Amino acid sequence: MSDDISRPEAIARPVVPALEAVLGRPFRVLDDGFVRVVDYMGDDSAVVQAARTSYGAGTKRRHEDRGLIRYLMRHAHTTPFEMCELKLHVRVPMDVWRQWIRHRTASVNEYSTRYSVAIDAAQRTAPDAWRLQSPANRQGSAGLLHAGQGAALSEEESRLQHAARAAYQARLAAGVAREQARKDLPLSTYTEAYWKIDLQNLLHFLDLRMDARAQQEIREYATVIGEQIVAKWVPLTWEAFLDYRRGGLVLSRIENELLAALTSGDRARAIAIADEGGLLTHAEDGRLKANLEGRELEDKLARLGLRAPWTE
Amino acid sequence: MSDDISRPEAIARPVVPALEAVLGRPFRVLDDGFVRVVDYMGDDSAVVQAARTSYGAGTKRRHEDRGLIRYLMRHAHTTPFEMCELKLHVRVPMDVWRQWIRHRTASVNEYSTRYSVAIDAAQRTAPDAWRLQSPANRQGSAGLLHAGQGAALSEEESRLQHAARAAYQARLAAGVAREQARKDLPLSTYTEAYWKIDLQNLLHFLDLRMDARAQQEIREYATVIGEQIVAKWVPLTWEAFLDYRRGGLVLSRIENELLAALTSGDRARAIAIADEGGLLTHAEDGRLKANLEGRELEDKLARLGLRAPWTE
Amino acid sequence: MSDDISRPEAIARPVVPALEAVLGRPFRVLDDGFVRVVDYMGDDSAVVQAARTSYGAGTKRRHEDRGLIRYLMRHAHTTPFEMCELKLHVRVPMDVWRQWIRHRTASVNEYSTRYSVAIDAAQRTAPDAWRLQSPANRQGSAGLLHAGQGAALSEEESRLQHAARAAYQARLAAGVAREQARKDLPLSTYTEAYWKIDLQNLLHFLDLRMDARAQQEIREYATVIGEQIVAKWVPLTWEAFLDYRRGGLVLSRIENELLAALTSGDRARAIAIADEGGLLTHAEDGRLKANLEGRELEDKLARLGLRAPWTE
Amino acid sequence: MSDDISRPEAIARPVVPALEAVLGRPFRVLDDGFVRVVDYMGDDSAVVQAARTSYGAGTKRRHEDRGLIRYLMRHAHTTPFEMCELKLHVRVPMDVWRQWIRHRTASVNEYSTRYSVAIDAAQRTAPDAWRLQSPANRQGSAGLLHAGQGAALSEEESRLQHAARAAYQARLAAGVAREQARKDLPLSTYTEAYWKIDLQNLLHFLDLRMDARAQQEIREYATVIGEQIVAKWVPLTWEAFLDYRRGGLVLSRIENELLAALTSGDRARAIAIADEGGLLTHAEDGRLKANLEGRELEDKLARLGLRAPWTE
Repeated sequence: MSDDISRPEAIARPVVPALEAVLGRPFRVLDDGFVRVVDYMGDDSAVVQAARTSYGAGTKRRHEDRGLIRYLMRHAHTTPFEMCELKLHVRVPMDVWRQWIRHRTASVNEYSTRYSVAIDAAQRTAPDAWRLQSPANRQGSAGLLHAGQGAALSEEESRLQHAARAAYQARLAAGVAREQARKDLPLSTYTEAYWKIDLQNLLHFLDLRMDARAQQEIREYATVIGEQIVAKWVPLTWEAFLDYRRGGLVLSRIENELLAALTSGDRARAIAIADEGGLLTHAEDGRLKANLEGRELEDKLARLGLRAPWTE
Repeated sequence: MSDDISRPEAIARPVVPALEAVLGRPFRVLDDGFVRVVDYMGDDSAVVQAARTSYGAGTKRRHEDRGLIRYLMRHAHTTPFEMCELKLHVRVPMDVWRQWIRHRTASVNEYSTRYSVAIDAAQRTAPDAWRLQSPANRQGSAGLLHAGQGAALSEEESRLQHAARAAYQARLAAGVAREQARKDLPLSTYTEAYWKIDLQNLLHFLDLRMDARAQQEIREYATVIGEQIVAKWVPLTWEAFLDYRRGGLVLSRIENELLAALTSGDRARAIAIADEGGLLTHAEDGRLKANLEGRELEDKLARLGLRAPWTE
Repeated sequence: MSDDISRPEAIARPVVPALEAVLGRPFRVLDDGFVRVVDYMGDDSAVVQAARTSYGAGTKRRHEDRGLIRYLMRHAHTTPFEMCELKLHVRVPMDVWRQWIRHRTASVNEYSTRYSVAIDAAQRTAPDAWRLQSPANRQGSAGLLHAGQGAALSEEESRLQHAARAAYQARLAAGVAREQARKDLPLSTYTEAYWKIDLQNLLHFLDLRMDARAQQEIREYATVIGEQIVAKWVPLTWEAFLDYRRGGLVLSRIENELLAALTSGDRARAIAIADEGGLLTHAEDGRLKANLEGRELEDKLARLGLRAPWTE
Repeated sequence: MSDDISRPEAIARPVVPALEAVLGRPFRVLDDGFVRVVDYMGDDSAVVQAARTSYGAGTKRRHEDRGLIRYLMRHAHTTPFEMCELKLHVRVPMDVWRQWIRHRTASVNEYSTRYSVAIDAAQRTAPDAWRLQSPANRQGSAGLLHAGQGAALSEEESRLQHAARAAYQARLAAGVAREQARKDLPLSTYTEAYWKIDLQNLLHFLDLRMDARAQQEIREYATVIGEQIVAKWVPLTWEAFLDYRRGGLVLSRIENELLAALTSGDRARAIAIADEGGLLTHAEDGRLKANLEGRELEDKLARLGLRAPWTE
């Protein structure tokens, strides 16, 4: 064997003490859910090891691990992150699971309500936890219902969940097949699953599901997985993820040019760029107003300490 | 350009008149569901065209299309079947959708009950359509409940579905966010989706979901997709699929050897093979009895017109 | 059927005249390669149609198509772009194909050199087309070799390719199996394939392979696919892709904060942020110097018309 | 928490001593290749654990592990096998890697010849190892070339590999970029990669690549992975795989019916079934002759100790 990149030798599997310490321990989520680590493969150095294979031995001297991981994250060199794998055991309401399962890159074994009687637990809502429909965001919530009004909804929720369970039990008692008896269980019914996914796809899941636009319930699960598990498992990757993905800001070509005009002090040109780019609407009185894309730009500019020139 | 396998020239997209005739037309399934074709790419000849690329120009003279497609199906040469694509618009109860969505190789856009009010329809069960739990198969059903007893269950189902809808409407009326209000809708609530998948993965879906072990509801959808749509779209592929996948019989190495012993008339050796292979259990009185694997072999032998030697 | 989001009715497949006009026509790439469209499914409105399913009927009145597609692109709502599919026939050197095939989300049928004699064509390099190793970028090239020196390399290339072909032919003449005879063909040998991929994954391919960091050969293919094919097929999606993905700028959390400090005129704080974020190194004489991550930030600031404060 | 299927508690990762014993140790393949295990996740019990989640607690009493794993294998219940993961470091000729990489379900980091100088090793062929083209199977080989004639081919192979390497070195010496200099390296050049895949997809890879129809080179790698690694790692799964997948026999619906006719002694009906099924051709003298599909059936019958009735 000649010129190979490695000197094959006896090795041991990577072990992450901080993750070993919580192996199997459930982190509670919602009123009756949990997430726990069942197994894992790899760590930050497994990412580095794979990346150096792709970039050759020469890089060993040039990059420190942290720098290399940040470089990978920054340039969307995603394959080295696939070299780590996590297996979780989760317990979630079926309504949350409906969103969760949309991520197609994981391996899944869900508790079967064809083989077994459905789990006798449904997610309950406290009187002060009913969220109001967001007027601005059609798919979001904003603020809470008054707890007094919420109490009635919580009582009705409880009645409904009991009625659904009673009907389920009555069907089973009559001999109806489990696969059919379950059909009117509420979406709030808990289910359980083993869920196995590589780090790259897990970060994608977390990026979408920790986001403010994600529904609060799945956001709570994603936050626990990220902050309680991934942060312990691969701390360098987690830091780079927070910096580049969670805390990052993406500017379009148009926004980029507009910002350059702004920093050079040319507000008129900045407005013209926004207008030509289709980010503004013209009111009858001639005033300019941002459309949805324009309003999102206003928010980005605010994060950079700037004001959109058409708002001044 | 020299020696290329093709003479690139102006071409037209393949068109399948039998499928064009039903484009957009809903095929009804269950009490309020449907499946309809929105778009498709390719046909039987697209499979053949791709296969001949992989096998070279020489095969053109050797195989007829039908023979080539059967060869591909027989030898699990699956990639040419990926060259065809189907896009459906489906309407299914969420409980069925839970099983459907487990197939991770499709592209999906589901109706959102965060953005919009949930579809006001839930799957109903007729008094004579309540299925009994199968005693033999823990995940199946067998036979029907007496319609008299079923009537009570159907009435209760209706009450429950109305109560759940009323609670949903009350929450919306109180201003609760759609994403949270929906949490106690029954699993029987209908949803809709665009579902796009290639032919290879579609056949895998159909093989699993047309199977007698699949739940009846999804089996009805799969059967409509197979018999009303795929059979029209790619008739040669469909015929090969029925012959090799749906109607095929898989024998294990053990079963293979046992069958060879049987056809040579050596019943004692056949029994010994089953015994050593772990397909039989020994009762206290010394009698041999098939376990689960052994009973499945008995069924296979029956399909071949043979009896298991330990049953005689 | 009640309350459904659609009125199922007879429909026709979407047709894109600008793409139909080039169907089957090869676009030449490199000295002997090509790309041509064999089939396609969907168009910009298929993206919109699928997105509106997920966001409900209510969005119909709120968004124009262009705005909706830009919104999807901006917020990484990727599933609607999966609803379009493209099938290409390509001819590429095997060395390019090695990079191409790393994209795992496509369906592929490649010309087989087990079944058939290898294509008798290898990519040749003109005397003035030998690229110099980039000193700055270990994986890139920069500038060209002097054509005089290149002439010798091109002659040697020709000799080598002929010798390899002659050895291949000699093996075949001696009766050696094609699958083994090919083993010493050069990586520059052309191969052909059918390649089918959905629009979302195609855009990801183009984003990586049209990039300045991609190798020039595959960049030429990607550029032809993007500018000659995708731009004609889905013009609104293409425009949004250019604005948000190709022309976009991603700032990390650190860069974001640093930019805010800069726009508020606080250069000292901007430097401190870069230093704490690990973007600077301290020389022995106390001077600050950007490391790799820092130099990339300098480039981003330049695009925004700004200078890094430590360079002044 | 109530009625859950598990009692979450502290756990340890599964460890497989037989696999630990070879961790990191290279298994040699071909003249200069290897395969070695870098990491793994799960074992036979991880498959069982996941399967029992899907089938509920009740199955604990009914199945032994071996029986359950055989049941999963027999009925293509594939998801529990995805719960195990293997990471290999491999060294293979690029020509083998071209076939290997077609399996799209693995994670890969390959040694980069853009970043680093190509590995200075190419697969060599001994004078007595040149395989003859199979006359029966267009994509296969059969028998060996006479070593005397082979010696000349081996010498030419050596000359060619040296010339290619020399040209590569001359380009590098002239300053040509590595990414371009490599373009005429022979396909026999060795490359290395980390390759990570789950057990289900690994078994699929092995089933195709251990097959007699696979090219000998990749078959040697697959055999080492199967027999030296997977057999140690998950012995129950490996046994079931050998019985059901490697040693299994698939009969089509037509073959099934024909076999039933044969075992009932009705040879005329068996011939008619084959004829109607399109497995026979009629010679001008009226004699029946099997086509390709028919000849494959003859082989299957032979494995069952039977003769095709038209051959008697």
